[in-house]
Amino acid sequence: MNRRDFAKLSALAVAWSSLPTSLPMFAQTASAGKPLGFAAIGLGRICDIFMRACQDPSGGAKVTGLVTGHPDSKGEKYASMYNVPKSSIYTYDTFDRIRDNKDVDFVYIGLPNSMHCEYTVRAAEAGKHVLCEKPMAISSAECRKMIDACKQAKVKLMIAYRVQYDPTWNHAIDLIKAGDIGQLESFQGGFYGQMRNDWRLDRKLAGGGSLLDLGIYPLNAIRHILGEEPNAFTAVVATREKGDRFAQVEQSMEWTMKFPSGVIASCGCSYGQTGPGFLNINGETGFLTMDPGFNYGGAVMRGMAHRKPVQQSGLGPMTSQFTLEAQHFTNCIRNNQEPLSDGEEGLKDMIAIEAIYKAAGTPIA
Amino acid sequence: MNRRDFAKLSALAVAWSSLPTSLPMFAQTASAGKPLGFAAIGLGRICDIFMRACQDPSGGAKVTGLVTGHPDSKGEKYASMYNVPKSSIYTYDTFDRIRDNKDVDFVYIGLPNSMHCEYTVRAAEAGKHVLCEKPMAISSAECRKMIDACKQAKVKLMIAYRVQYDPTWNHAIDLIKAGDIGQLESFQGGFYGQMRNDWRLDRKLAGGGSLLDLGIYPLNAIRHILGEEPNAFTAVVATREKGDRFAQVEQSMEWTMKFPSGVIASCGCSYGQTGPGFLNINGETGFLTMDPGFNYGGAVMRGMAHRKPVQQSGLGPMTSQFTLEAQHFTNCIRNNQEPLSDGEEGLKDMIAIEAIYKAAGTPIA
Repeated sequence: MNRRDFAKLSALAVAWSSLPTSLPMFAQTASAGKPLGFAAIGLGRICDIFMRACQDPSGGAKVTGLVTGHPDSKGEKYASMYNVPKSSIYTYDTFDRIRDNKDVDFVYIGLPNSMHCEYTVRAAEAGKHVLCEKPMAISSAECRKMIDACKQAKVKLMIAYRVQYDPTWNHAIDLIKAGDIGQLESFQGGFYGQMRNDWRLDRKLAGGGSLLDLGIYPLNAIRHILGEEPNAFTAVVATREKGDRFAQVEQSMEWTMKFPSGVIASCGCSYGQTGPGFLNINGETGFLTMDPGFNYGGAVMRGMAHRKPVQQSGLGPMTSQFTLEAQHFTNCIRNNQEPLSDGEEGLKDMIAIEAIYKAAGTPIA
Repeated sequence: MNRRDFAKLSALAVAWSSLPTSLPMFAQTASAGKPLGFAAIGLGRICDIFMRACQDPSGGAKVTGLVTGHPDSKGEKYASMYNVPKSSIYTYDTFDRIRDNKDVDFVYIGLPNSMHCEYTVRAAEAGKHVLCEKPMAISSAECRKMIDACKQAKVKLMIAYRVQYDPTWNHAIDLIKAGDIGQLESFQGGFYGQMRNDWRLDRKLAGGGSLLDLGIYPLNAIRHILGEEPNAFTAVVATREKGDRFAQVEQSMEWTMKFPSGVIASCGCSYGQTGPGFLNINGETGFLTMDPGFNYGGAVMRGMAHRKPVQQSGLGPMTSQFTLEAQHFTNCIRNNQEPLSDGEEGLKDMIAIEAIYKAAGTPIA
């Protein structure tokens, strides 16, 4: 899946460069200003994808700095790819000097989860806005520290919930808000994949298992759609595979949640299964199924609203969820607005994640 | 949904009668013998559907008796529709005389759940084989009584799990058994609908809520596919709607299950939502999604097996799950074989249902 998505994204990047004049309307209006410069922190897969997505000018962002433990290999490679001056390549030791780099407006944090807090705080202290990958951190205490540091430094903090910027998801939310499926009643969701040879299987770096990385998708989507916080949980974990792969984090998990309104949900996630990334949204008079719901390629929606079949998919021509996410953040910085998926949003997911692990009998800390 | 399915089934019945010579191969072989006669007990919607389905000769069954509290209205109506002699219309009081009716080989029980046990026992004592709708009864104690009575009387007992006789479901099971999605890891499923003005909302008649009637579909499918019994449960119930409709049974429920092998599942059901009837089957290397999975119209399967998309749907020409179910049961009677979905199968679901209600804090009894 990862390789294919990556290939798809690469293909998109080629398409963008060959068709620069045919960007969709919203992109042309949004890219009116000069792009904001950003430093990518941690040059792994997710940073690579984000930098590629920012080649689309509609994101309003341009890579102007690189932070890596391998300045001579990875650093040089991306510097030449994106015309970043050698002086704007930082290591984790020299990172704080980024304060003096006027070409860097914000940082994009694509580090292992356990490093999100430290680099958010250090970036804020250097006066840079922060776009941090999900999960926000590995504990609610860390999330609060990050929120405080950004408030203190008067910089924006956004958590990279890319799905919140997908037009198909937003169309689904519009239908729900318009009452097209009636009062919301329940959700069923999940996100499953095979993870191998990755820092995500190392508890010290990841903070937990697939719940933090994959289960967070249905969790966040449900919270985002409902605008409520779950307050009762049950959970079950399972690790069928013996051996090293799941020595530190659980293989699979299914859980239930209940919200104060009475809405209920069941969800699951795994690093050791092949399965869909989906969400069913059941209302009084209709339902929506987002499947695939969480893939990079954009959500596919189908269902029944007002007793009629509904269907929508696609991100629009030549764009990606990452571009839309960048566009939202750069607009927030330019217009001094709070991001939709701000630090509080990341904190609320982390509070739920802690409660789910506790319900499973495997608390985070 | 019910009306539409009903209409679809009626349309099929017309199609059968106009194309009697083009039945599929298996139907022609299966209908070699003289059809077995059955008495329909309780002439509600499900009996109506079953009798219509048995107009297809491939079922090998023919309605030869009727049991109803309204012999003069419903009884007469169906008697004239299916050429049942007036002497073969019984009331609940005169039912036991069916013992003397040589044209009745088995009974089809489409009564409210709380009456399944009594009429199974009385039918067995009258020497008739029993095809009983799901849920088998309203407690595991009742299920055991039914199994014992049928064993004692040497009659067959089958629970009408129509989905087990759907060729698309059986194709999915074949793929799984062939290892096409690898070792099974988890399931997510549910079945949701709006129930109004129905005995199913009356606890005395239904024995519980939608878990017994709708939740039993994903539960049975998972147990049937895995060939294992779940031994750990969590559950959450919710009743958002105030008022009479859900005064006696819960509106909605989501639950998790764990099996001795380590396979886990989450499922849900409701009598007060609009939603799909679906099952996701996640394996090590592939997955299958049955959606719709539990509709009368037959299952639709899609997924990934051996890293390639797979897809199948449809019941084959001019047949229904009810016809296939009848065909299985009449073949079992003719060949003195144990039905696939026998009393033990119904009992095992009931044991799980009792455990789920207990986990939800709302035990059945």
